[in-house]
Amino acid sequence: MLTVSFEQMKKELVRVLRKNGFTEQKADECAQMFAETSLDGVYSHGLNRFPRFIDFIKKGWVNVDSQPELINQMGNIERYDGKLGPGNLNAKYCMDRSIQMAKENGMGLTTIRNTNHWMRGGTYGWQAVNHDCIGICWTNTGASMPPWGSKTNKIGNNPFVLAVPRKNGSVVLDMSLSQYSFGQLFEAKRNNKSLPVDGGFDSEGKLTKDAEAILQSGRVIPIGYWKGSGLAILLDLIVSLLSGGLSTQGMDEEQPSQNAFGYACSQIFIAIDPLKVSGQLNEQLIDETLHYIKQAEPASEGGNVYYPGEGTLMKRKKNLKSGIPVDEEVWKEVQSM
Amino acid sequence: MLTVSFEQMKKELVRVLRKNGFTEQKADECAQMFAETSLDGVYSHGLNRFPRFIDFIKKGWVNVDSQPELINQMGNIERYDGKLGPGNLNAKYCMDRSIQMAKENGMGLTTIRNTNHWMRGGTYGWQAVNHDCIGICWTNTGASMPPWGSKTNKIGNNPFVLAVPRKNGSVVLDMSLSQYSFGQLFEAKRNNKSLPVDGGFDSEGKLTKDAEAILQSGRVIPIGYWKGSGLAILLDLIVSLLSGGLSTQGMDEEQPSQNAFGYACSQIFIAIDPLKVSGQLNEQLIDETLHYIKQAEPASEGGNVYYPGEGTLMKRKKNLKSGIPVDEEVWKEVQSM
Repeated sequence: MLTVSFEQMKKELVRVLRKNGFTEQKADECAQMFAETSLDGVYSHGLNRFPRFIDFIKKGWVNVDSQPELINQMGNIERYDGKLGPGNLNAKYCMDRSIQMAKENGMGLTTIRNTNHWMRGGTYGWQAVNHDCIGICWTNTGASMPPWGSKTNKIGNNPFVLAVPRKNGSVVLDMSLSQYSFGQLFEAKRNNKSLPVDGGFDSEGKLTKDAEAILQSGRVIPIGYWKGSGLAILLDLIVSLLSGGLSTQGMDEEQPSQNAFGYACSQIFIAIDPLKVSGQLNEQLIDETLHYIKQAEPASEGGNVYYPGEGTLMKRKKNLKSGIPVDEEVWKEVQSM
Repeated sequence: MLTVSFEQMKKELVRVLRKNGFTEQKADECAQMFAETSLDGVYSHGLNRFPRFIDFIKKGWVNVDSQPELINQMGNIERYDGKLGPGNLNAKYCMDRSIQMAKENGMGLTTIRNTNHWMRGGTYGWQAVNHDCIGICWTNTGASMPPWGSKTNKIGNNPFVLAVPRKNGSVVLDMSLSQYSFGQLFEAKRNNKSLPVDGGFDSEGKLTKDAEAILQSGRVIPIGYWKGSGLAILLDLIVSLLSGGLSTQGMDEEQPSQNAFGYACSQIFIAIDPLKVSGQLNEQLIDETLHYIKQAEPASEGGNVYYPGEGTLMKRKKNLKSGIPVDEEVWKEVQSM
C-alpha cells in the first residue's frame, strides 16, 4: 500500500487549491482539513473526496471566493449566509465563532444557510474539543432515505456530531443517520460480503443484509428504523428553521444536479465551554465513565469495547508514524491536477 | 375497555398527591402531566406509572418538598440542583426557565442535577412548542444496555426529545436510545409475538426478534447498534459534565436500589425561540416539509407515513372525545390510595 506523509499530502492539496483560485490562507486551511481527515482514517472524506470537491468548484456549485456573511446576531447566537462557499471553510468559520462566544458567555450557537457539504462532520467536533469546548453540530442533506413506512427517498441522512474534550483522548461521535453509507454498501457489494446487521430493504420489502439488494431497491434504513426516521425529520426542521435556509425538501428541489451532494445545505454549530459554565472541566468524571464502559465484558473472546473517537486517535497515531495509506489512482489523479 | 375522562383522572391523581404531601399547586401541576401523558396515549408513563411514582415517594427516593435550587447563572445558562424532588415538576421548572430565557435572548439552556425520573420526556417538548419554542432536552439514566461489543449493561437508554412548534400540529420526537423499551419486550413476550425488527441478542450472541430470548440474555440493543451506543455515551457525558451531576456510572453506584429508576439523574433543557432568533416562525417551511414526507409512496398498500407527534395528536383528540382507556386494576389501585 502506498503511503504519503501528512505534510506531503497537505502540500499537494494546497498546490491544487491555489491553482483553483484559493487564497494562500484558504488553501492552507482547506488542505489541512482534507489531510487531517485522511490522517484520521476517514479516507472517504479526505483525499478520496478531494477530486470531487474540485469538480464541484469547476461546475460552479462551490464558490471559492465566498465568505460567510453575518445576517444577524442576538446574544450568543449568530446567523450566517454561506454564499455557497467551500463547505468545510464555512463550517470551520462557524464553529470558530461558536467557540469564541462560548469562551465569553459559556456557549455560542451559529447557524449557516446556503452553504455546501462540510466533508467530514467530525472535523468540527475535533475543532471544538481542541479548544476545550463541548461541540454539537449537524447538517441537513438532500434526501437519501425513505421516511419510515414508505419507499421514496424524502429524508436526509443528516450527519450529527457530538464531542466532549478530554486531555487523554477526546470523545467524538460523528454519525450519519443512515445505518450504512452508500460507500459502505458499494464496498460490501464489491467484496461480496454480507452486512453485519440489516442495512435496508430488498425489492420485495424485506429487511436484508444484502448490500446489492439494498442498492437495487434504493431503500436504506435509518438508525433505529422509525426512530432515526423521526430524528432525521426533526434535525432537518430545526436547522432549516433557525438558519432560514433550505430544508431537505428545498435542497431536493433547488439542486443543480442529482449529484450536487450537499448543495445549499443548512448547518448549526453549538459550542459550550464547561470550564466557563460550571467552573471546571471534570476530567475525572469523563475518565471514570470511559473506564466503566471499557470494563464491560466483551461480547466475544478477545474483543474490545471502544468509545467514540478512540479509534480515530489510534489511526491518527499510526498514520502519523507510518504515513497515510492512499489509493494510488486517486493520489496520481490529484498529483496531475 | 374502561375509560375515564381527563378531568376525572386528574382529580383522582390530585387527591392522591395531596394525601402524599404535595401542595395544592404542585399536586395540580404533577397530576396534569400524568393525566396528559395518558391522554396522549403514552399509557406506560401516565396513570400506569403513577403507583410506582407514589411508591418512590414512600420509599424516600423522591422528596415531595424539594424545589430546584439555582447553583449558578451565566448569560442564558442556568444550573440547578434538583434536591431529589419529583422529577416531572423539576423538569417542568427547568424547561420553563429555558423558555423564559429564550423569549428574552433567543435561547436558554438549563441543566439540573440530582433530580429524578422525568416520566414522559415528550412532556417537556410539548411544553416548549406550546410557547412557540423549539425544544431540545435529554436525561441520562442508569445502565440498561451493553455498550456495543460487550455483554454488560453499562450505558443508559438516555431519552432524547426534539420538538418544533407548528400551529397545525407540532412535531415532537420523544425517543429513548434502546430499540425497544423493557415494557415493549414484556408485552411481546406476554402476547407471544415476534418483534418487528431485531431488538437484542439471545444468550448465544445472535441478534433476534424473540423478546423472551432478549429478556433472558438481558442484552437489548441501542438504535443503530454501534451508533446508538456512541450516542448514549456522548449524551450522558455532556449532561453530567454540564449539570455537575451523576453520570450513568455514578447513578449505578449511588442508587439506593436496583429498582430506583432515574434516581439522582442529570438533565438538560434547551429552548430556542425562532421568532426572536430569525424574526419569524416559518410555518410554510414546516408545512412543506411535512407535506413532502407524507407524499412518500407507502411501503405497503393503504399504508401511511406519519411525522413525529402526529400520532400523539390523533390519540389526544380521540381520548378527549371518548375518554382515556385505563387498566381497571391500576385505576382501582389508584382510587384506593
